[in-house]
Amino acid sequence: MKITRLRSQLTYDGAALALEAAIAKAKAINAPENIAVVDSGGNLLAFARLDGARFLAQHSAYSKAQTAASLMMPTGQLGLQFGVDLALATGSRSINLPGGIPIIVDDVVIGAIGVSSGADPDDIAVAETRCWPD
Amino acid sequence: MKITRLRSQLTYDGAALALEAAIAKAKAINAPENIAVVDSGGNLLAFARLDGARFLAQHSAYSKAQTAASLMMPTGQLGLQFGVDLALATGSRSINLPGGIPIIVDDVVIGAIGVSSGADPDDIAVAETRCWPD
Amino acid sequence: MKITRLRSQLTYDGAALALEAAIAKAKAINAPENIAVVDSGGNLLAFARLDGARFLAQHSAYSKAQTAASLMMPTGQLGLQFGVDLALATGSRSINLPGGIPIIVDDVVIGAIGVSSGADPDDIAVAETRCWPD
Amino acid sequence: MKITRLRSQLTYDGAALALEAAIAKAKAINAPENIAVVDSGGNLLAFARLDGARFLAQHSAYSKAQTAASLMMPTGQLGLQFGVDLALATGSRSINLPGGIPIIVDDVVIGAIGVSSGADPDDIAVAETRCWPD
Repeated sequence: MKITRLRSQLTYDGAALALEAAIAKAKAINAPENIAVVDSGGNLLAFARLDGARFLAQHSAYSKAQTAASLMMPTGQLGLQFGVDLALATGSRSINLPGGIPIIVDDVVIGAIGVSSGADPDDIAVAETRCWPD
Repeated sequence: MKITRLRSQLTYDGAALALEAAIAKAKAINAPENIAVVDSGGNLLAFARLDGARFLAQHSAYSKAQTAASLMMPTGQLGLQFGVDLALATGSRSINLPGGIPIIVDDVVIGAIGVSSGADPDDIAVAETRCWPD
Repeated sequence: MKITRLRSQLTYDGAALALEAAIAKAKAINAPENIAVVDSGGNLLAFARLDGARFLAQHSAYSKAQTAASLMMPTGQLGLQFGVDLALATGSRSINLPGGIPIIVDDVVIGAIGVSSGADPDDIAVAETRCWPD
Repeated sequence: MKITRLRSQLTYDGAALALEAAIAKAKAINAPENIAVVDSGGNLLAFARLDGARFLAQHSAYSKAQTAASLMMPTGQLGLQFGVDLALATGSRSINLPGGIPIIVDDVVIGAIGVSSGADPDDIAVAETRCWPD
């Protein structure tokens, strides 16, 4: 029986790198966004709200990031009822909106990014920004 | 008029037994789960989050257990609107997701188990694990 | 710049071992307790409420565990005002009550245990139970 | 009667600059911190949680920033009872802990920074980092 296991964790520097890449993408496609980066346990590491982004979407960006980290897959793919019930059950930490993407390194989910304010394709495009060296 | 009534209550030992059986089932079907056991008043008695289980599902496992104990029947069988309204009315202690099963001994609901993280059939299979002698 | 770092994490088996040791101690000193074990990010891993334990203390046991994991030191040592303000600022995830102890392996805080229901010395004694091989 | 007034507002670029300066200060004094920057309406603009910072302090950093923006003065200077009552009345958006500093340009409060995780002097030193050209 092992009481500990070694896991790779996202550093602040890594989160800042992911955030910078997402900001660059958001500017490139002219989509002012809220962008949140969390670690694998759902705690906030880095955040940006660009000028013009909807202020309430600060919450949904964070929820999307937590959801993607917990589900270990992109957000927004659940059925209506399941998504609503999960949101209710988790105090809205889980949210069934597209724009949350897990950050995966060497097949391990080390965190997630959540993007909110724009149209769905914009949120997804910004969240999917490739920010890690291969 | 009687001012008291005798009720059978789930002990911690009973809850631990139910939890162990559910953990064994979860491992057997390779479904990392959050598993919560509550008493008939909905208070948490025992809990486990297995390695690899989605962390936000810690909340839904507990909500499912409370819901099953309160409804005195398996969870996830309400209509969409009724389920959402009950969740809202109860501060999400009631949730309309499958995976909550009452624990019944001698026709009395003495508690419930709630399981969350996997696909619905896995959550249900783990929650339904038979853990009591006939 | 490193985007990830390797960290030791508490497994469920490790959390269950810590919980079992705390339960044994609680029984040995005849102190029915709520006992919560969290990982280093504050998410619940394992929980027990022993027969006779105060049911509202399920919440304080969890808060104590989260606080010890976050502070990376035993709980209950802050001044009155600071403790109250931190509790308010964190939605009571941080609580200034003794009975929360970080779980440290090789100088790394990998989680914490929180114990609540009894007198302070009992809560502390149960939380401090040595459960790891040297 | 004027139905509009011109107000200077903190941009995301300004918030990022304040955040960077605070991060540099935190690293210089070896104080891993949570750092939040809000606009004059209390909405989050930028956030960082440095490696080693206490995760629950993500909440208090944000509360401190909101409090400083609202009070238009540094946080932590209220009496105990007043501070607690304000926290309760505001759902903990207002918090009476030092480490929140308004960002003032041309005598106008355009936002605030809140810093939390370290000892009070560290939180204050990081929050007070001068980041604007004279």
